[in-house]
Amino acid sequence: MLQTIAWTNDAVRLLDQTRLPTETVYVQVANERQMWDAIRRLVVRGAPAIGVAAAFGVYLGIRGHRARDLLSFYTRLNEVADYLATSRPTAVNLFWALDRLRRVARDAGRCAPTDNEQEIIDIVRQRILAECLLMLEEDARVCRAIGENALPLLLARSAGASAGASPAPQRRPIQVLTHCNAGALAAVAYGTALAPIYLGHERGIAFHVWSDETRPLLQGSRITAAELMAAGVPVTVICDNMAAMVMSQGRIDVVIVGADRVAANGDVANKIGTLGVAILAKHFAIPFYVAAPTSSIDLSIPSGAEIPIEQRDPAEVTAGFGRRTAPEGVDVYNPAFDVTPAELVSAIITEKGVIHAPDTARLRQLMV
Amino acid sequence: MLQTIAWTNDAVRLLDQTRLPTETVYVQVANERQMWDAIRRLVVRGAPAIGVAAAFGVYLGIRGHRARDLLSFYTRLNEVADYLATSRPTAVNLFWALDRLRRVARDAGRCAPTDNEQEIIDIVRQRILAECLLMLEEDARVCRAIGENALPLLLARSAGASAGASPAPQRRPIQVLTHCNAGALAAVAYGTALAPIYLGHERGIAFHVWSDETRPLLQGSRITAAELMAAGVPVTVICDNMAAMVMSQGRIDVVIVGADRVAANGDVANKIGTLGVAILAKHFAIPFYVAAPTSSIDLSIPSGAEIPIEQRDPAEVTAGFGRRTAPEGVDVYNPAFDVTPAELVSAIITEKGVIHAPDTARLRQLMV
Repeated sequence: MLQTIAWTNDAVRLLDQTRLPTETVYVQVANERQMWDAIRRLVVRGAPAIGVAAAFGVYLGIRGHRARDLLSFYTRLNEVADYLATSRPTAVNLFWALDRLRRVARDAGRCAPTDNEQEIIDIVRQRILAECLLMLEEDARVCRAIGENALPLLLARSAGASAGASPAPQRRPIQVLTHCNAGALAAVAYGTALAPIYLGHERGIAFHVWSDETRPLLQGSRITAAELMAAGVPVTVICDNMAAMVMSQGRIDVVIVGADRVAANGDVANKIGTLGVAILAKHFAIPFYVAAPTSSIDLSIPSGAEIPIEQRDPAEVTAGFGRRTAPEGVDVYNPAFDVTPAELVSAIITEKGVIHAPDTARLRQLMV
Repeated sequence: MLQTIAWTNDAVRLLDQTRLPTETVYVQVANERQMWDAIRRLVVRGAPAIGVAAAFGVYLGIRGHRARDLLSFYTRLNEVADYLATSRPTAVNLFWALDRLRRVARDAGRCAPTDNEQEIIDIVRQRILAECLLMLEEDARVCRAIGENALPLLLARSAGASAGASPAPQRRPIQVLTHCNAGALAAVAYGTALAPIYLGHERGIAFHVWSDETRPLLQGSRITAAELMAAGVPVTVICDNMAAMVMSQGRIDVVIVGADRVAANGDVANKIGTLGVAILAKHFAIPFYVAAPTSSIDLSIPSGAEIPIEQRDPAEVTAGFGRRTAPEGVDVYNPAFDVTPAELVSAIITEKGVIHAPDTARLRQLMV
């Protein structure tokens, strides 16, 4: 079983996801610069996973720092957190995790049962590591809860598909389309969009997943397909532009994707291409679900228009996989994410519950 | 200037489009088996171009054949045509061109001013070569006429974009999205979807083309972008899954694509992904135009449901960029085309005229 992120031998071990599916290589990350680079280069990716990774990055950045006094320790901590915040702009989990650690560090310092600054620094350091380990454990728990909340929605589609109210045995697999990777490798375990599929699969429910390959970096074919095959879940890879045809053939019961950031009104920033899938799903009257931890919900911004969208290197499009596939010097537009308006989202599924037809009032209510 | 197909030194010269954009290589095709292979492997592609290529394939297959008598000559001719018809199933131009040559051969034989069978065979042979050369010349003329018919539709969008009825100078380029390659390299010259852009560009009208890269074989980034850059038309390459975002930003005035086969009711088979683009265009209220010669219209089939869709090698999806990008043994669905229902097509633009809101009655009327 591949493991996204682990704390071993006083270092963070990351699966290098840029090398999947042909190579399974783990890398040791020993300091905050290596973690920044790993997040930036997508060695580790997926909103939940980069939140946890960034948190560990903070710990790596302060654990060896010899602070003269408490003030210089906190200055260093903030510098490291600010630095890690520049690695990627869109997934809010990154900022959520960094802010959580800042708060924990402040509280731990304030409540420390000593006045010795070096002792306080040690306590805060330990508290930060503990919080990182907690986030690691918590993420798996949160994803499992998302899976439990999402599974009934997928099963409802299966009942709809077999068109009977009686609890007849399942006739055919539930056909799920997903985009990019919001699976175990986008989180610590289970993932978000794939969590209900893993849980259902464990319980004998048959699924068939259609995985958009997800250009330019092919997380769908490189990662989602590999994850599902390893778990024994039937999966078919399609190019992104084939989703409309597969839907038109009546082969998709439900779409489920992850999220990098959900605005207060329910607009969803997710991997580029998600908006297109949502529009297709609406056209073919297929439910479109977003699975995300509440740590991906950003009530501080009113709508998706305010979500910063990362622009990435044109070479990802023109020379992504070993050879050049576009003319030299061609103009390229390469946004890493798009924004799906809330009205195209059937429901947002979190660890705390399901928000049908999401809007500002319903999101605020859930987040209380 | 790159040349799709030419008759030189008693052989067909094809630009090997599989090697674009990094290499410009021309290949000599000397017999019908090489032509079958060139069509199958997409050395030559695009509905108009493969029609002309198949026609030359017939000539190559009969020119050196020593027929005992007229019957065995015609048997050979039909065998070669039947064989070439198996190269690709979807673009109807292939069958149209082969049927045209069979008819020409039959008529030439029947009307030959001699009873000597070997002389008749020579006459028919010459007549077939002449018809191939005519088709070569005709295709460029037809594409130019498509361009003339399409240009006013694109200009109308520009007027709409600047929101004034007065003939003010053009403020910004007309923003056109296209999918795959329906340009000069999909035909003998000009192309279909790109013909109005080339004609307009010659006349000083500013365009900006957004070119879907078009997975799996990337005709949009490899060929369309290269063609447009060579002609001096500004072009931006995007991954297929970015079209929705670009449309949502209000950056697309009009979509124009080619066709591999148009059914009697106006349903359009075209490169996989076209259906998705058409649905997005409808969602964003952007006109969706199909540019195609009448040789792509197949009145013999009532709707798109009857158009055979070519399934291609999964390796195009899993190892298309020079290295493997999906797990070994993964299931892949790789249809080369999809069908866009007529109700999503604003107009079909042919060399004979424009069919707005296409349906069976309007198509039959045009084809009279």
